Amino acid sequence: MSRAVLIVGGGPAGMLAAHALAATGQRAVLVDKADRLGGAPILSGYARLVPSGEWAKDAIGGMVKRVQANPLVDIRLGTTVKTFSGEPENFRAILSDGESVDAGAAILATGFTHFDSVNKPEWGFGTYQDVVTTTQVEQMLSSGRGIHCPSDGRKPERVAILLCVGSRDRQIGREWCSKICCTVSSNIAMEIRQELPNCNVYIYYMDIRTFGLYEGLYYWESQEKYRVKYIKARIAEVTSDGKRLIVKGEDTLVKRPITIPFDMVVHAIGMDPNVDNMTLSAVFGVDLEKHGYIQKASSYANTSATSRPGIFVAGAATGPETIDDSIAQGRSAAIAALTLASGIMREAAE
Amino acid sequence: MSRAVLIVGGGPAGMLAAHALAATGQRAVLVDKADRLGGAPILSGYARLVPSGEWAKDAIGGMVKRVQANPLVDIRLGTTVKTFSGEPENFRAILSDGESVDAGAAILATGFTHFDSVNKPEWGFGTYQDVVTTTQVEQMLSSGRGIHCPSDGRKPERVAILLCVGSRDRQIGREWCSKICCTVSSNIAMEIRQELPNCNVYIYYMDIRTFGLYEGLYYWESQEKYRVKYIKARIAEVTSDGKRLIVKGEDTLVKRPITIPFDMVVHAIGMDPNVDNMTLSAVFGVDLEKHGYIQKASSYANTSATSRPGIFVAGAATGPETIDDSIAQGRSAAIAALTLASGIMREAAE
Repeated sequence: MSRAVLIVGGGPAGMLAAHALAATGQRAVLVDKADRLGGAPILSGYARLVPSGEWAKDAIGGMVKRVQANPLVDIRLGTTVKTFSGEPENFRAILSDGESVDAGAAILATGFTHFDSVNKPEWGFGTYQDVVTTTQVEQMLSSGRGIHCPSDGRKPERVAILLCVGSRDRQIGREWCSKICCTVSSNIAMEIRQELPNCNVYIYYMDIRTFGLYEGLYYWESQEKYRVKYIKARIAEVTSDGKRLIVKGEDTLVKRPITIPFDMVVHAIGMDPNVDNMTLSAVFGVDLEKHGYIQKASSYANTSATSRPGIFVAGAATGPETIDDSIAQGRSAAIAALTLASGIMREAAE
Repeated sequence: MSRAVLIVGGGPAGMLAAHALAATGQRAVLVDKADRLGGAPILSGYARLVPSGEWAKDAIGGMVKRVQANPLVDIRLGTTVKTFSGEPENFRAILSDGESVDAGAAILATGFTHFDSVNKPEWGFGTYQDVVTTTQVEQMLSSGRGIHCPSDGRKPERVAILLCVGSRDRQIGREWCSKICCTVSSNIAMEIRQELPNCNVYIYYMDIRTFGLYEGLYYWESQEKYRVKYIKARIAEVTSDGKRLIVKGEDTLVKRPITIPFDMVVHAIGMDPNVDNMTLSAVFGVDLEKHGYIQKASSYANTSATSRPGIFVAGAATGPETIDDSIAQGRSAAIAALTLASGIMREAAE
C-alpha cells in the first residue's frame, strides 16, 4: 500500500496498530484529539494496570515513546478528522487543521468515555467529597499522594467500593457490563490494603466477574491474602451522618437491610460509549450499535471490520474492553488494513 | 524473514496467525496433531458460535478452506513437534514424521482440553445418560438431530444447565473461571427454547459472567425473549427417581434447599489446560503458569511472548479464552513473529 493507514485514537489499541503497521513497513498517520498520546491510562492517570501490574506511566508511556520514535508513524495531536471520503485503498481525510491525508484504510481506535458519577446522584457523588471514583483512586496512587479522604486528607479506616456504577443499570440507560471493573476494583482494594494495612475494604457487588485466570489472581488473592470482604448487595443510597458516609441497601444473600458507615466510598465507574461516537459515525459513515458503541462486524470472515469497507475498529470503541484485548485488537486491525493493501492476499488473509 | 514461522495448533488462533503472516508475504508452517484443521469448534462439533451466531462448520470451516488455499501456508496434519532447538531467527523443529522445519519464530496456538465431567461424579455424568455436557448439546444442534434425551430420544420438557462444571471449583483443583461458559450457556438455553418452545430451561449459577455487551445480547435476551430462568444456587448432587433426574442443592438467594426434577441436565464444562501442555513445555522450553496453561508475558513491552524469546503464544493455550479474542491474539502473535523478522523495526513495533 503506497498510501498510509489513518489511525484515529492514540491509546493502547491505536498505538499498537501503528506499531504493527510500521513493523511491516507500512506508514501510519496517527491522529488524536488530545494533545498527548496514551489514551485513558495516561490522560486519566491510571496507576498499576491489570493484569501486568506495571505502572501505566511506564507501560503505556513506553508505548508512547516507541511510537513517537518510529519514522513510519506520523503523529498529529490536538487534531480531529473533519471529513473522510473515497473508497478502500483510496480514501482522503481532511483534518481539523486543514491538512489532508490520503489513506488506503482507516482504523478507529477511539476508545470510551468514563461514566460520569453525577448521573447516579443517589450514590452520593458530587454531594459528598469523600465519595470518589475508581479513576480518582488511581490518581491518588499514581500521583504518589496515596489514599486519602478528599474532605480532610485523613487516611480512611473503612472503604466501600461499589461495583456497577454506570453499568448493568437500566434505570439510567446502561444495561451493558463494563467487563473489567470487577477486576480493577479487586486490584484497587488490594492496593489500598497494601498502603493502609489497618483499613477495612468492602466490595459491594451484583455478580463478581473476575473472568478467566483473574479469578485466582484477583478475586481469591484479594480475599485470602488481603482480607477484602465481598458483599452481594443492592445499594439504595449513600448518605452521611455528618461524620461518616452511610451506605444503605440490602444484603442480597442474608436478605437484610444494611446501614454501614464508611470513611470513603468508591464508585467503580463503567465505560460509556465515547461521547464523540455520533460525530465519528457521521464523519466516517460507520454504524453504531444500539448502545452507541461502534458496530463491529460479527462475521468471522470480517474480523475488525465496521459497516464501511476499508474502515476497521479496535478496542473499547466497540464496547467495554480490557487493555490487553484492546492491544490484540489493535494489532488485529492492523492486519486487516494490511490485508486490504496486499490485494492478492485479501481473500486468503481474511 | 527468509525462514518460515512455525505455528502449532490449527484452531482459530493458529489459522488466523497463518492468514496474517501470509498477508504480509511471510511463509508459515502450520502443524496440528489432529488429522484436520479447525480446532475445538470443528473437532468437537460446535453449533452456532457466540457472538457471531454463525454455524461453526461455516465460520470456522471457512477459515479452514482459506488457509488450505493459501500457497504461503504449509499444513502438516496428524503431526507433532518432537524437538525444537536454536535461537530466534534460527530455530529448527523436528516433526513426528521425521521431517525438519527451519523457522525464524514459533507461535503456540495449542488451545485447551474440555473438562471431563466424569471428574465431577456427584453431578451425575457417567451415571445417568440424560446428564450431558454443553459440548454434547452443541453436537445435537450441529448434527441436525436436535435436542433429545439420550436415554430414550424423547424431547425434554425441563432442562437444567449447571454452570461452572470444572471451573471455580477448588475441590477438584480448578479455581479458574472458564470465561465464556456463562454466555455459551445462555446461548444454548435460547437455542433449546427456539427448538422446543414448551421446554422450560433453568440455569443454575454462582455468578453470571456475561461480560461487556454480552449482558444485553445473552443474559437479558435469554430472560426477556426466551423466558430462561436463572437461579443462584449451590448444587449438591444430581440423582434420579427412576423416571426423572433430580437436582438437589440450595437456592442461595432464598436460602432454601431445592429438589427439582428435570428430563435433562447439562454440564457447562470448563476449559482445562491442554493435556499436552507438559509435553509442549518440555519440547519448546516454555514455562507454564501454576494451573498448567502456557505462561504469557505480563509486560506490555512483550505482547504475545512466552518465557522463551522467539516463541509466542495465542488463544486458549494461555487460559480460558473466547474465539473472538483467540483470533485477535493469533493475529497479534503473528505481528510479534513478524517484528522479530524485521530486525530494524523490532524495538519500534514491540
